[in-house]
Amino acid sequence: MAKEIIYPVSVEFGDCDPARIVWFPNFFRWIDHASRHFFVGCGVPPWHETEKTMGVIGTPVVDTKARFFKTATYGDALQFHVSIPEWRGKSFVMRYRVMRGTDQIMECDEVRLFVGRHPTEPNGIKALDIPQEIRTLCE
Amino acid sequence: MAKEIIYPVSVEFGDCDPARIVWFPNFFRWIDHASRHFFVGCGVPPWHETEKTMGVIGTPVVDTKARFFKTATYGDALQFHVSIPEWRGKSFVMRYRVMRGTDQIMECDEVRLFVGRHPTEPNGIKALDIPQEIRTLCE
Amino acid sequence: MAKEIIYPVSVEFGDCDPARIVWFPNFFRWIDHASRHFFVGCGVPPWHETEKTMGVIGTPVVDTKARFFKTATYGDALQFHVSIPEWRGKSFVMRYRVMRGTDQIMECDEVRLFVGRHPTEPNGIKALDIPQEIRTLCE
Amino acid sequence: MAKEIIYPVSVEFGDCDPARIVWFPNFFRWIDHASRHFFVGCGVPPWHETEKTMGVIGTPVVDTKARFFKTATYGDALQFHVSIPEWRGKSFVMRYRVMRGTDQIMECDEVRLFVGRHPTEPNGIKALDIPQEIRTLCE
Repeated sequence: MAKEIIYPVSVEFGDCDPARIVWFPNFFRWIDHASRHFFVGCGVPPWHETEKTMGVIGTPVVDTKARFFKTATYGDALQFHVSIPEWRGKSFVMRYRVMRGTDQIMECDEVRLFVGRHPTEPNGIKALDIPQEIRTLCE
Repeated sequence: MAKEIIYPVSVEFGDCDPARIVWFPNFFRWIDHASRHFFVGCGVPPWHETEKTMGVIGTPVVDTKARFFKTATYGDALQFHVSIPEWRGKSFVMRYRVMRGTDQIMECDEVRLFVGRHPTEPNGIKALDIPQEIRTLCE
Repeated sequence: MAKEIIYPVSVEFGDCDPARIVWFPNFFRWIDHASRHFFVGCGVPPWHETEKTMGVIGTPVVDTKARFFKTATYGDALQFHVSIPEWRGKSFVMRYRVMRGTDQIMECDEVRLFVGRHPTEPNGIKALDIPQEIRTLCE
Repeated sequence: MAKEIIYPVSVEFGDCDPARIVWFPNFFRWIDHASRHFFVGCGVPPWHETEKTMGVIGTPVVDTKARFFKTATYGDALQFHVSIPEWRGKSFVMRYRVMRGTDQIMECDEVRLFVGRHPTEPNGIKALDIPQEIRTLCE
């Protein structure tokens, strides 16, 4: 079984739109926070440290699929259940199941890469092999 | 051919993260803006007016798939090409191709619904049949 | 002494800009969350309930002053100390001291109003007298 | 007379909260965009270039005062009038008047600094003297 770490979110007034439900881009903000929270919870150092030690500056998303089952509104307490169910050659799948207690609100599967700065293009990034020490911490 | 409307975005400093690239949840903010911009460009009134005339309070996303091809950074001018390639019974597909000139940055296909307030649950929403007058404006 | 309630914030990667420090508009997001959190902590119901019972739909800001003393970055744990040091006729002062342990990061004083829907202008709002039951809960 | 540059903003659905007005932290997002837009309009290069040429990585805010006069909602077109009315030794005042046609929505005065990376503290920043070439471009 893949390790699972829960990221709690309290939905706030300003997270909701005039229809009084969470404005959906906010779910992707929380998903990215939950992704970082997962790595931190597994013992992976912050990216500005891994940049120095292994050249990793982050884990950008290359592909994302999400389904929304129920709406959420302010005052709701949500739990983002995060895991990495699949490791591939240069990419990995990060999975989020978002619950409000026993109600499932949404789910999302992402493909992410470990990247470093591009050797020649300023502002460019390039994919790295998955660092074995990070994978070991997260499995 | 489905109608296509372009939503321009200028990427700003604060849209980028410490890796100096657009923090990806911002793409979903722009996508939702681009969706509204499409309806406005087609002549659909704002949701607080359609709420009175046809009960529509918005078009929440139930399903979204996105792929990211290239990174973008501040100073970039992006063009979100928006169209509705498919109308189903109670849902429709909204498509976004995000370009920086001739470079494709990302693409996204969403399934959205037209919804109104739920007749009995406070804060609840319910799916509506697709209003024919809106469909006619957008095709 | 005015009641004080602490709102904790964990600074995330996506809250930071390419200079690797918190992009300052995010402080105002957290401040508004901390404001709601204060009212909830004092026992004030959500605005969609107060709308029905006393006509209050929110507490918009009319005036804000903030000073920034130190920068914060991702991985930091911040504490927003919130209080209402002053009640005026139709407005009140909401104060935020933002700490990272013993380091003060910023401070902010806002003037806010209790508002309801405008009786005649659609989308308009109007200031209300401060509801005594809310004031009693928050002092 | 100080140079003035106008930054246009189209208020979107997702910028508004359940009270159907702009959620105020969004004004600070736009203000920061308007600040960058001012420098770009004056001919100042992006910060990742000035970092190399003069060590400037950005202009963080140390002090901000804002007053809100009228609310705005989605569909509104706003104009942010930006200028630098005052240059001090190591800081400068950036002013924003936010109009919707002839209606003033808000105003904001900020004190900002030019900063570079701290010579010894990782992630630290330090104030720089105001670069004369930037000041000349912006006056």
